[in-house]
Amino acid sequence: MPADSPADGLPRVGVGVDVHPFAPGRPMWVAGLHWPQESVGLSGHSDGDVAAHACCDAILTAAGLGDLGAQIGTSDPVWAGASGVALLTEMAGRVRSAGWRIGNVSVQVVGVRPRMAARRAEAEGVLSEACGAPVSVAAKTTDGLGFTGRGEGLAAFATALVVPA
Amino acid sequence: MPADSPADGLPRVGVGVDVHPFAPGRPMWVAGLHWPQESVGLSGHSDGDVAAHACCDAILTAAGLGDLGAQIGTSDPVWAGASGVALLTEMAGRVRSAGWRIGNVSVQVVGVRPRMAARRAEAEGVLSEACGAPVSVAAKTTDGLGFTGRGEGLAAFATALVVPA
Amino acid sequence: MPADSPADGLPRVGVGVDVHPFAPGRPMWVAGLHWPQESVGLSGHSDGDVAAHACCDAILTAAGLGDLGAQIGTSDPVWAGASGVALLTEMAGRVRSAGWRIGNVSVQVVGVRPRMAARRAEAEGVLSEACGAPVSVAAKTTDGLGFTGRGEGLAAFATALVVPA
Ligand SMILES: [Zn+2]
Ligand SMILES: [Zn+2]
Ligand SMILES: [Zn+2]
Repeated sequence: MPADSPADGLPRVGVGVDVHPFAPGRPMWVAGLHWPQESVGLSGHSDGDVAAHACCDAILTAAGLGDLGAQIGTSDPVWAGASGVALLTEMAGRVRSAGWRIGNVSVQVVGVRPRMAARRAEAEGVLSEACGAPVSVAAKTTDGLGFTGRGEGLAAFATALVVPA
Repeated sequence: MPADSPADGLPRVGVGVDVHPFAPGRPMWVAGLHWPQESVGLSGHSDGDVAAHACCDAILTAAGLGDLGAQIGTSDPVWAGASGVALLTEMAGRVRSAGWRIGNVSVQVVGVRPRMAARRAEAEGVLSEACGAPVSVAAKTTDGLGFTGRGEGLAAFATALVVPA
Repeated sequence: MPADSPADGLPRVGVGVDVHPFAPGRPMWVAGLHWPQESVGLSGHSDGDVAAHACCDAILTAAGLGDLGAQIGTSDPVWAGASGVALLTEMAGRVRSAGWRIGNVSVQVVGVRPRMAARRAEAEGVLSEACGAPVSVAAKTTDGLGFTGRGEGLAAFATALVVPA
């Protein structure tokens, strides 16, 4: 049974984990939003939006379509500067083209900054629109533990549910 | 489509991650149980029960109700000393009040202590009663790697499924 | 309501997290595949296949059957040298024997090696056959952050969906 066959009619779940280091001098984009008050951004291919990337991997694994790296290649110039929202919009379209309906996505951002609580609803709106399905956003600090606690970067953990269209 | 609308009839999945440092002199509460033989507890708002908190975030994100911090506020004195079980009971009630039935929750605790294997069924009983739905509990060590491996604290990872009531 | 009762008819979701340190002189087995070009393997009970083990815990927690340690015991000589694929095959059988159908599993491997992209489809084939259900495999590096970024070991995060048979 191939991993990408929607034939059995069941919903499927996916997982996505992403991590990016903080990088001075870059704009901060997280959860589909620009955080202009932050003096650091996230390094990496594209804008480093861990939340959007984790959502991409969650819907792609749910649909059996590999992962974000497999879909776009980390050296593809077309996507080199792409925003997390652009990537999520594109990956959601590919999931639908493969015969799936996206039920929902949930993502939790782990790290010391940005302070997401005040803009959580705004982030959910932007990511939900990109995904074409409800996206829930949670945030958490680790009280000083690990690389997220030391303020070295951000992590995000996501899960998604898709059903045959 | 708002993240909190149960109108499409599909099940939804959520994610919850939590981390708390060990703190000498505090009682250890993990997975809804007191571990009297442990000489350290977990620091943080409430009792620091990473498993119960991760379950809270998993059901809240599944239902599109934000996260535990958004629901109670980390400085709300009403919940300052609340047990993880009390928080999970309250959050499960809020999820149901928002029109959802909780299908199940699974949570994995990562760290060197307490040794949960002997009391796993007991923990599942307490958390399932709090949640009003089956809660599965798993545990894992990391063979010395990371902050959990160095014995600095505990992490927990949870997922949940809810359906429109 | 016991955590292992399939009586309510709903699908259930599970979570699995696993971590193993790299160990010189051991063969590398990850995601059901041997990686002969790697000069290190993974330490631990059995072959240290983090992806297969995370899949085991994801289906076991979804089905309310505890975790891999509870099922086999970390000191059980029968499983001391077992491959991840053998363990996943056995655990999938136990999940089915308990009255569940495995819908799908998704797992993401986090770390610097092996480079999984070129063999992702092969890994999905092997794990899907072991599981008797579609298994999606994603991979990710952490850009130098944490124990996975320092090349100390591998982590894997999995989720699964099961339904009453
Ligand atoms: Zn990324
Ligand atoms: Zn907590
Ligand atoms: Zn393992």
